[in-house]
Amino acid sequence: MKHGGNIYRFAQNLGCLPRQVLDFSANINPRQAVTLDCLQQVQLGPYADPHYSELKQALQERYPGPPGADIEVFNGASVAIFALLRFLQPDDVVLYAPLYGEYAHIAGELGCRLHTIDRFVDPAADVPRGSTVIFVNPSTPDGRLYDLKDWLEKWRAADCTIIIDESFLDFCLQDIGKGREHDCMDAGGIPSGAQGAMPGAIAEERKLCENKSITGHIGHYDKLYLIKSLSKFYGCAGIRIGFVMATSPAIEALKRLEPAWKLSSLDMAYMQQALTNTAFIGQTRRQTSELRGQLRQALSDCGLFRRIYDGQANFLLAELAGMDGYQLQEKLAPSRILIRVCDNFAGLTRRHVRFAVKDEQAIAELARCLNTITSEL
Amino acid sequence: MKHGGNIYRFAQNLGCLPRQVLDFSANINPRQAVTLDCLQQVQLGPYADPHYSELKQALQERYPGPPGADIEVFNGASVAIFALLRFLQPDDVVLYAPLYGEYAHIAGELGCRLHTIDRFVDPAADVPRGSTVIFVNPSTPDGRLYDLKDWLEKWRAADCTIIIDESFLDFCLQDIGKGREHDCMDAGGIPSGAQGAMPGAIAEERKLCENKSITGHIGHYDKLYLIKSLSKFYGCAGIRIGFVMATSPAIEALKRLEPAWKLSSLDMAYMQQALTNTAFIGQTRRQTSELRGQLRQALSDCGLFRRIYDGQANFLLAELAGMDGYQLQEKLAPSRILIRVCDNFAGLTRRHVRFAVKDEQAIAELARCLNTITSEL
Repeated sequence: MKHGGNIYRFAQNLGCLPRQVLDFSANINPRQAVTLDCLQQVQLGPYADPHYSELKQALQERYPGPPGADIEVFNGASVAIFALLRFLQPDDVVLYAPLYGEYAHIAGELGCRLHTIDRFVDPAADVPRGSTVIFVNPSTPDGRLYDLKDWLEKWRAADCTIIIDESFLDFCLQDIGKGREHDCMDAGGIPSGAQGAMPGAIAEERKLCENKSITGHIGHYDKLYLIKSLSKFYGCAGIRIGFVMATSPAIEALKRLEPAWKLSSLDMAYMQQALTNTAFIGQTRRQTSELRGQLRQALSDCGLFRRIYDGQANFLLAELAGMDGYQLQEKLAPSRILIRVCDNFAGLTRRHVRFAVKDEQAIAELARCLNTITSEL
Repeated sequence: MKHGGNIYRFAQNLGCLPRQVLDFSANINPRQAVTLDCLQQVQLGPYADPHYSELKQALQERYPGPPGADIEVFNGASVAIFALLRFLQPDDVVLYAPLYGEYAHIAGELGCRLHTIDRFVDPAADVPRGSTVIFVNPSTPDGRLYDLKDWLEKWRAADCTIIIDESFLDFCLQDIGKGREHDCMDAGGIPSGAQGAMPGAIAEERKLCENKSITGHIGHYDKLYLIKSLSKFYGCAGIRIGFVMATSPAIEALKRLEPAWKLSSLDMAYMQQALTNTAFIGQTRRQTSELRGQLRQALSDCGLFRRIYDGQANFLLAELAGMDGYQLQEKLAPSRILIRVCDNFAGLTRRHVRFAVKDEQAIAELARCLNTITSEL
C-alpha cells in the first residue's frame, strides 16, 4: 500500500470489511466535529448558491485572512492543487521533499520541470529564479513544523510563485522555538499547560503560534498561495472541501477557470456545521498531542525503530532498525493494521514508515502487535 | 435571472426563503428517487475508494455501454464538460445553438475558436474539418429530441471529435419518428399507451427509443464522447455526480489528468441508492409526460404566448406575443415564481422563456398567475 486511502484492497485481501481495518496509513482525525444528523434539513433539489457564500463566510471566520486576501473553494485539496498548478502553468516547480506524492504526480502530468530540494539534507539550496516553490508545513511524512519567515523572503527575492500547504497546521499550532512542547490555544481559548499564565504570556504565545501560518503574508505578495485541506482536521475524508487563499485579484483570475457547482450541497452543509464547533479545535489539539505521545511511546517501547522523528502533527514518521517497512506491513496485516511505507517519498527508504495518530484503543492494539513482533524476532 | 440556479438572489430580493420560491427556471425533476435516510450508514472518516468502483458499477448497470466503452465519473456535468474540453484542447469548437451557455463560456475561457450553427435555421451547415462538435440531445432550451444517426456519419466524415450531452434523455425516451407522443418504457417495463400491444411491437418501440442515445456508437469511434448529468433526472442538483462515456483508451487518457478523490462519499452513497430505484425511471417518464401536458395547456390557455415549442424533455420553451420575458419575470416575481429568460441562448430573443416541468400544484399556481396577468392587460 504505497498510497493512503486504499484500505479497500487491503480489506479485500484480508477478507474483512474496510471499517474493520485499523488504518494507521491515512492522517485523518479519528474524531468528527458533527454527526450526519446535521444534514437532515438539506434541500437536494435546487442548485446550490453558485457563489458558495455561506460556506466561504464560515471558512473566513475560522481562517481569517488579512485585508486584500480572498479564498476560492474546491472539492478537496487534491483538486485545489491540480486547479492551482493548471492555472499557474509553471515551467519550473521546486518541491521541498520529502513531500506528499500528489504534487510531483500533478506537476509531472502538467508537463512542469521538477526540481527537488531535500529538506533534511540541503534545506537552504538555491531555487531557480521565477520558479514555483511548493512547501508543506507542517511537512509530511515527518510532521516537522517550520518557521517560514526567512524562506518567504528568500523565495520572494528570487521572484518565485509560492505555494504553502498548511493542511496539517490546525493540529499542531505550537511554539517550536523554545524546545518545549505545548498546545497552542484556539481563538479565545487557553493553551493546555498555560492555565493560570499571565494574559500577556498567553497573547505572546498566541502570536508565536499564529506566526507559523503564512496567512498574514498574503496581501503583501500577489504570488503567494495557501492551500488547505479540511478533511484531515475535521476527520472526514469523505467530505470533499478545501480552499486556496491568495490576493483578491489572484483568486479572481483562478476562479475564471473553475467549473460551476463543483461542491456537494451535503458536503457544504456538513462543513458549515463542523466549522461552527469551535470547542472541537482545542479538544482536537489537546487530544492529538496526548495521543501522539502515546503513539511515540508505543513505537519507542517495541524496540523495532532506530529513529522516531520529532513530528508536531497528527502522525509520526519512524525508521525501522532491522526489517523494512513492507516486512512490518506484512506482519501487521493479520491484525488488520494498515501502515504507510514511505519509500515513494523522495529521500526516504523502505525502512521509513508513517503512523497516523489514532484513538487510544487503536494505539494500544498497535503497541500489542508491535511487541508481539519484537518478541518473535 | 439569466442563469439557472440563482434562486438565492431572487429570494433575497423578495425577502423570502429560497425554498419558498416556485423555481420554474431550473430543469430539475421535482421528485427524488430516495431520501436522505439512505446516508445513515456512510463512514465519513476514511478516504473513499479512489477508483469509485461501486458507483461506476451502479452507473454501468443503469447506462450500459457497448464492448470497448468505459466511463469516468465527475463531480457534476459542468465539471465533466470543463475536464473534457481541457483534455481535448480543441482549436475549433462547433456549438449547435441554442445551447446551454456553459459550453460557450468554457470553450471561450479555454481559448477555443467558437463556431455556432443554428439548429433552427441551418441545421445541415458544414462543420470545419477536424473540429470538435457539441450537441445536446434532447436540446435545451427547446427540448427537441433528435435522431443523430445521419449527423454522426457526417461529423465522422469530417474527422470531428463529437461530444453529445444526453443529460435530459432519460426524461423523454420517445419515438419521435411517427408524429405521436408516448412514453418509452424503462428496462423491462411497459410504455404508457402500449398496454396490450404485441410483444413484437413493444420490442420494436424499445429499439426505436433506445436508438436515440448515441451509446451504441461508442466503441466504433474513438473520438465520440457522451456527457451525462444525473442531477436533472434524479431531482438532486445538490448531489454532484455526472459521467463521460467513451472508448476505454480515451477514458484512460482522460483520467490521467484528473485529481484524486473528487467525489463526495455522501453524494456517491446517495446516487448509488438512487440508481437502484428502477421503478423511479418509468414513474418519472410517465409523470413528466403528464405534467408537461398540463404545463403546455396552462401556457396555451393564458394567451400570452405566440408559440410553444414541441419539447420532449422536462421543460418547455415558449415565445411571448406581447411583452418580453423580463416583463413577465417581473410580473411573476411577487408570486415568488422564477422563470428563465432565454436571450442569452444564441438565436433566441428576450421574448423566449423556458419553464421547467414542476409538480401539479406549482403548475396550477403558475396557470393562475398567468391568467391574472392576462386579465390585467
